Amino acid sequence: MKTMESFPARVFAATAEKGGPVVVGLDPRPELLPPDLIAWGRRQSSDPRQAAALAISAFNRLIIDAVADIAVAVKPQLAFFEQLGWPGIRALEETMAYARERGLLVIADGKRHDIGSTAEAYARAYLGYTGARGKGACGGLDDIASGLEADALTVSPYMGTDSLEPFLAACRERGKGIFVLVRTSNPSGAELQDLPVGMGEKPTTLAERVGQLVMRWNEGMPTADGYGPVGAVVGATGPEEAARLRRQLPGVLFLVPGYGAQGAGATEAAAAFAPDGRGALVNAARAIQYAWRLEHPDDPGSADDYAAAARRAALRMRAELRAAVQTGRVSGDGD
Amino acid sequence: MKTMESFPARVFAATAEKGGPVVVGLDPRPELLPPDLIAWGRRQSSDPRQAAALAISAFNRLIIDAVADIAVAVKPQLAFFEQLGWPGIRALEETMAYARERGLLVIADGKRHDIGSTAEAYARAYLGYTGARGKGACGGLDDIASGLEADALTVSPYMGTDSLEPFLAACRERGKGIFVLVRTSNPSGAELQDLPVGMGEKPTTLAERVGQLVMRWNEGMPTADGYGPVGAVVGATGPEEAARLRRQLPGVLFLVPGYGAQGAGATEAAAAFAPDGRGALVNAARAIQYAWRLEHPDDPGSADDYAAAARRAALRMRAELRAAVQTGRVSGDGD
Repeated sequence: MKTMESFPARVFAATAEKGGPVVVGLDPRPELLPPDLIAWGRRQSSDPRQAAALAISAFNRLIIDAVADIAVAVKPQLAFFEQLGWPGIRALEETMAYARERGLLVIADGKRHDIGSTAEAYARAYLGYTGARGKGACGGLDDIASGLEADALTVSPYMGTDSLEPFLAACRERGKGIFVLVRTSNPSGAELQDLPVGMGEKPTTLAERVGQLVMRWNEGMPTADGYGPVGAVVGATGPEEAARLRRQLPGVLFLVPGYGAQGAGATEAAAAFAPDGRGALVNAARAIQYAWRLEHPDDPGSADDYAAAARRAALRMRAELRAAVQTGRVSGDGD
Repeated sequence: MKTMESFPARVFAATAEKGGPVVVGLDPRPELLPPDLIAWGRRQSSDPRQAAALAISAFNRLIIDAVADIAVAVKPQLAFFEQLGWPGIRALEETMAYARERGLLVIADGKRHDIGSTAEAYARAYLGYTGARGKGACGGLDDIASGLEADALTVSPYMGTDSLEPFLAACRERGKGIFVLVRTSNPSGAELQDLPVGMGEKPTTLAERVGQLVMRWNEGMPTADGYGPVGAVVGATGPEEAARLRRQLPGVLFLVPGYGAQGAGATEAAAAFAPDGRGALVNAARAIQYAWRLEHPDDPGSADDYAAAARRAALRMRAELRAAVQTGRVSGDGD
């Protein structure tokens, strides 16, 4: 089997090339798209689902073109494609293929998890993993590619180690990555994740316990600069918590969502980076894709306006992150 | 708005009509399908993905026909459709529509969860929920149906209450149901779910804590015979644990997976029922769909063989469950 570059190696190479750890979330909401694209989609198909899917596919290409030389990766949020049924999934395939063509990594945001045999189907769908299956049965139909293969997938830890094993196998054998939900920044994220667990004298939170599992899942994996392919989703819930998790989880790549529109800023995000300036990818979705609407709430704008505003927003985010991580690094050195 | 029957009301009506709480899981694995169906699919399309999707759609119709008068619901496992890309999702749409046409409820097994605005897209995709959106924007494109609307969806609790709010709204407003992962039966299920949480004198497990949230989420919801639309996935990990959760969670409908092939039998499943014989649905996937292969490991069989074996297996399961629940009820009365 040909050796593949590990996921963290590809992330670090791309971060160096693009000049920063920017990830652009693709959450295509038909109701927020530029009206001229929607009108174009409706001219292409009288089926409203297909019209919307064509429009979001075109919109994603436009955003990808606008940020291709700035972003490390795009992160399509699967829910927004699923809500359009199969035409939406076809738009997802087109979007992933186009991002790859433009030299971007793809992080499929699906937060999937299930018992082993089902997780294997998810690993096959999103990480191209076919390892555990008998080859050649059924006239070769077992070797079908899903068309949805990404570089990494977000996953959920609730069902434990064996539920993630096929994803871990894809990390070991196919140079893929996963990001495990550890601490999410939504208001109810604390409800379970901050619960003290265990009977010891120093109780940890559930999120910290999941973090310990993430460290264990990284053992024996291919690494780059000490980072393994099993990462963590760590929402920017405040710089203290992110900094604490950063110290507790060396070698774990963080995916920090919600930059901009969800309230996280560069200072919060900076806490997710190690003193060497590595260790995290930061995602903005609305703040980039819909920068035009945020800047001009009363002007619906055109596709050109959206693309130009998205590019400006991505450049601004990269600059803010660079400055914040630089500051954090300096103050980190001073500890 | 027209009032809709609640999800538990529909479940109980169907259980009475069908004579038992049988759910048939649809996990269409191309490598396990009858060879004649695969060959037929390949004659229809030279694209292996579409060939497989056509074959699984035909296979699901065949299983649905075989169990339509026995089963309360089918439970398509989304991963097995996603692994075939958009043709797989089209097969899922066809399968859901056909199940409905044959009078079966549909439980979409996706174990979805995400922050509120994304969960809303999942609720729109699988529960037809469009409540929180502005109507009429974008020339009506915001009112598109996904084609994937089910009666209920499995969801995951890790991100807390607000991450499930759109699903809860679909339960309140659209007669839908959800099943929240509480205790799963996979070997690593205990890893997080059995952790003692909280600082009190009587620590509960994480699974029990999630169960308490499920009870809370049912408050103020439409009910039938005391059961709300927010159910729980409770794997048959042993009769004691299921019986304990059953006592702790009155009014919560359990979805018990893994009957047959995953090792759970009627005695384990019976513990998930209340003394009145209500309170749970029991799912078998492999044990019904692939009953032919289990019975005849060396004979690949035809579509007709699979259908007949699936029907026999479903009838046997219904009879076993009836007998076990009856026994459980009698011994429950004697407590």
